[in-house]
Amino acid sequence: MTPAFEQLQQALKRLPGVGYRSAERMALHLLVEKPERLPALVEALEAAARAVRRCARCGNLAEGEACAVCADARRDGAVVCVVEHVPDLVAMERSGAYRGGYHVLHGRLSPINGVGPGELNWESLKTRLETGEVRELILALGNDVEGEATCHFIQQHLPPGGAVKVSRIGFGLPSGGGVLYADAVTLRSALEGRREYS
Amino acid sequence: MTPAFEQLQQALKRLPGVGYRSAERMALHLLVEKPERLPALVEALEAAARAVRRCARCGNLAEGEACAVCADARRDGAVVCVVEHVPDLVAMERSGAYRGGYHVLHGRLSPINGVGPGELNWESLKTRLETGEVRELILALGNDVEGEATCHFIQQHLPPGGAVKVSRIGFGLPSGGGVLYADAVTLRSALEGRREYS
Repeated sequence: MTPAFEQLQQALKRLPGVGYRSAERMALHLLVEKPERLPALVEALEAAARAVRRCARCGNLAEGEACAVCADARRDGAVVCVVEHVPDLVAMERSGAYRGGYHVLHGRLSPINGVGPGELNWESLKTRLETGEVRELILALGNDVEGEATCHFIQQHLPPGGAVKVSRIGFGLPSGGGVLYADAVTLRSALEGRREYS
Repeated sequence: MTPAFEQLQQALKRLPGVGYRSAERMALHLLVEKPERLPALVEALEAAARAVRRCARCGNLAEGEACAVCADARRDGAVVCVVEHVPDLVAMERSGAYRGGYHVLHGRLSPINGVGPGELNWESLKTRLETGEVRELILALGNDVEGEATCHFIQQHLPPGGAVKVSRIGFGLPSGGGVLYADAVTLRSALEGRREYS
């Protein structure tokens, strides 16, 4: 096909789950079959890139100051589930098993890759812990060395006095896997089977 | 998630082969995981929409006047394969079984849907036939009533004198199916087993 067509195909192929053949099909769809959808897609991409930012409180995706979870008064803001990434939060929400708040770290400690606390959304979690608004912390981090190290770090930096109850989801999460790929049933049992972290 | 996020998800879901879940995954990818790829995708979409047009000669996708097939001097321009849509042409090319030129009708006759010759890329095929540049016409149209009607119409409008040899691919194409979904082997045998159309 043409160079611009191939460049579009390459750009589509970089999306997750899209291979060479389906990128070709999408490009043909947008250029030949339904060209009226292309401007709508461009508009949606640009609008989302413009509007979507981080929730100032928890790090989730937001359009205003607070994200939909933080703004929801029916949710228990004193229980905070700590996740690595936004897709992990989405997976948790999809399970329907959780009605508290979140804190998205946007990563996990990985000294070997140069990721320290300063690279994570950690200062704002520290602040939330220090203000006393958090009664319970559920660590929903990956079941691997870096997840373990991140849990350990958080536990070391809790406010003194044991005011915050800390648990870590564990039951059901396969070794070496992250929250993102777990199904709803596994996440539900992981939440129910969480054990105290000390 | 946020309204702009959901609108982007909806726009992505309209792509072929993309469901609710994979659209969510793509939107998260473009907004959270790899936000640097979003402008590149927008740019590729806009550049392709700007640059890609119809080949003036055959109706294939092109960036200049002539498409890559028409511009390729090694291909036999006197043999013309008539297809319904550009994806059909792409499927033919993928089979590697054909080295002639094309003519893309951008549809087929369908009186019931108001598609007459005027709605198709037919005038330019008629001109190509009348100039005498075409020695052989291969009708690679769908194996159904509308494909049949379109073949019949083309045959009725050939220049007189029998200067153009006409065949229709047939062997191997399942009844009711189009060229787009056939695999390379089926298309190869369909080309080899083409029968004279009269």
